[in-house]
Amino acid sequence: MISWPTIYHVLEETVPLYVAMIVAYLSIRWWKLFTPEQCSGINKFVAKFSIPLLSFQILSTNNPYDMNLKLIFSDILQKSFSLLGFAVISKVFCVEKFDWLITGLSLSSLPNSLIVGIPLLKGMYGNEAVKLLSQIVALQSLIWYTLLLFLFEFRAARGMSTTTSSETINEAELGTPGPIQERHEEGQAKGVSARCYSAFCFLLVVGRKLVINPNMYACLIGLIWALISFRWRIHLPSIISNSIRILSDGGLGMAMFSLGLFTALQTKIIACGAKKMLLSLGIRFFLGPALMVISSYAIGMRGTLLKVAIMQAALPQGIVPFVFAKEYNVHADILSTAIIVGMMIAVPVALGYYIVIDHPRL
Amino acid sequence: MISWPTIYHVLEETVPLYVAMIVAYLSIRWWKLFTPEQCSGINKFVAKFSIPLLSFQILSTNNPYDMNLKLIFSDILQKSFSLLGFAVISKVFCVEKFDWLITGLSLSSLPNSLIVGIPLLKGMYGNEAVKLLSQIVALQSLIWYTLLLFLFEFRAARGMSTTTSSETINEAELGTPGPIQERHEEGQAKGVSARCYSAFCFLLVVGRKLVINPNMYACLIGLIWALISFRWRIHLPSIISNSIRILSDGGLGMAMFSLGLFTALQTKIIACGAKKMLLSLGIRFFLGPALMVISSYAIGMRGTLLKVAIMQAALPQGIVPFVFAKEYNVHADILSTAIIVGMMIAVPVALGYYIVIDHPRL
Repeated sequence: MISWPTIYHVLEETVPLYVAMIVAYLSIRWWKLFTPEQCSGINKFVAKFSIPLLSFQILSTNNPYDMNLKLIFSDILQKSFSLLGFAVISKVFCVEKFDWLITGLSLSSLPNSLIVGIPLLKGMYGNEAVKLLSQIVALQSLIWYTLLLFLFEFRAARGMSTTTSSETINEAELGTPGPIQERHEEGQAKGVSARCYSAFCFLLVVGRKLVINPNMYACLIGLIWALISFRWRIHLPSIISNSIRILSDGGLGMAMFSLGLFTALQTKIIACGAKKMLLSLGIRFFLGPALMVISSYAIGMRGTLLKVAIMQAALPQGIVPFVFAKEYNVHADILSTAIIVGMMIAVPVALGYYIVIDHPRL
Repeated sequence: MISWPTIYHVLEETVPLYVAMIVAYLSIRWWKLFTPEQCSGINKFVAKFSIPLLSFQILSTNNPYDMNLKLIFSDILQKSFSLLGFAVISKVFCVEKFDWLITGLSLSSLPNSLIVGIPLLKGMYGNEAVKLLSQIVALQSLIWYTLLLFLFEFRAARGMSTTTSSETINEAELGTPGPIQERHEEGQAKGVSARCYSAFCFLLVVGRKLVINPNMYACLIGLIWALISFRWRIHLPSIISNSIRILSDGGLGMAMFSLGLFTALQTKIIACGAKKMLLSLGIRFFLGPALMVISSYAIGMRGTLLKVAIMQAALPQGIVPFVFAKEYNVHADILSTAIIVGMMIAVPVALGYYIVIDHPRL
């Protein structure tokens, strides 16, 4: 049975996250301390420095030769189920087919593992869980966010091949003016050859997006360094690791602060309406973990490993998919609601799962 | 003799400070990542959250019953020498008498003990130095910054009693419109009674300034909590201390980052001209430590305690005096130059002092 000390230990790790978030919320709504432009400065700091450094710190200090293949396979399986399922469902039921495929994948399988997951699961299962979760964080940043970006760009590219106006808007949003449009027009003039050009442009844009994403770099460098460091047992000189830690130490608090600012700046907390909110929370907190249970059982996972896998699937919505969704203007209201409301109910939901899966049969 | 490992240890603690600062500088000058308004958001975060929480953390974890009275007395003596000295010098040589009294006091006796001092001296003399320095940090925030504020307000009030226009400007700067001006005009109508009113206004403004300064609260609460905690051996519940630490952990890095932004946003690095720059650096790095040597010898300090006292007096210029100087428009250019150039030469100067005072006779 779950004991009170265990629950208190979980709260010790999670309440501070809420405190940072609430302080940020109050600093906007009550003290009116920051203007929206000032908030975007703090958010930019978090996105460009805090989170990448936090990712680097976590990935570079965990042994990549001690990866848990079962966990990785079940993670891949869960996401494949989700992708396939939403492809079918959205094709049958939805008008905006591709939009719901993307949103469904984000909601069901891309939780906030780095910022909320690591402290929460550390409180529940100790440092072993941090080790396991860091593998999921690595895959999420290196593979799944890249796939998500591909899907978003593919959707944008499909729109691009039918209308020119939407493409222009898209380009303006992406901050890549001139060249692509020129190429596109050039391509259109050349007929079938045009499709080749579109494919080239598409890859170019995806590549560019990946190249300017510091978190992607941080994860990659973190992983490469971990591969070197754990292979030859080399440590970073403390002058370098201290230099990274001086900015990454505050990463967790800053990220939560930024989430609080984000919440406070929304005109509506439930931006997408009650119906879609319930749907999104259902996908996040029930469908996601359910798919994980199926995948994990299929792979043959048991014990703490299974528990960690389920728990991480029941975390609140991750922020990166929202950032993309906002950039490409695909259901950003739904993801923003899922993040905010999800954060509010995250700890009760997690404790609920914690109590339920603490069952001798698992 | 100073060994290379010791110097490397000092660099381990100080290089990260510069890295955070340089990253911030490059993010403005090279990557053009933040607008000035966005920077002011980050700076506000640092001033309202990072630094107060850092102050609280340092004061609340150091035993106030184990204060070093010799250090405190010599600190008071040094500041008194400085105050007296600059009062005489500015009366004899300067046109802007009161301005140079204030700037002289700031330059000679208010170094950056919290952000630069603690990591630097920790590298040199270990945790014992942190304990000693935290006492100086406490006194600086609770007594000396308050005195400095009094001096600035006194200067503003003297201006106020002669001209009405300057007072109006001052009020606009202080963000305290209507009431004070009304009271002042009312006071002027009443003659001698007016002086009483001015004194009342003066105290009111100083009081208000102190009340809205979160660092002052943080130091006071930190000290009170330390008095309770070390008296009855009570610890903060970890849920509370974690909540504080989630935002204070990044305090040091954020503060240095903010200093880098500040540097990058200045149009000129040497804003006050070379002559005044050399004067200000002379006061900061030679006069300040010299006064400390005299005071410490007078009090009878020897050994490590004396070394820590001298070293902390040779730190670069503190930031709070600059914030005040900018607000009251008193030699802000000199203090900004002293901070920026001082930071650049801080580690060489500190290592120089470190080597010089590492003498068996001390």
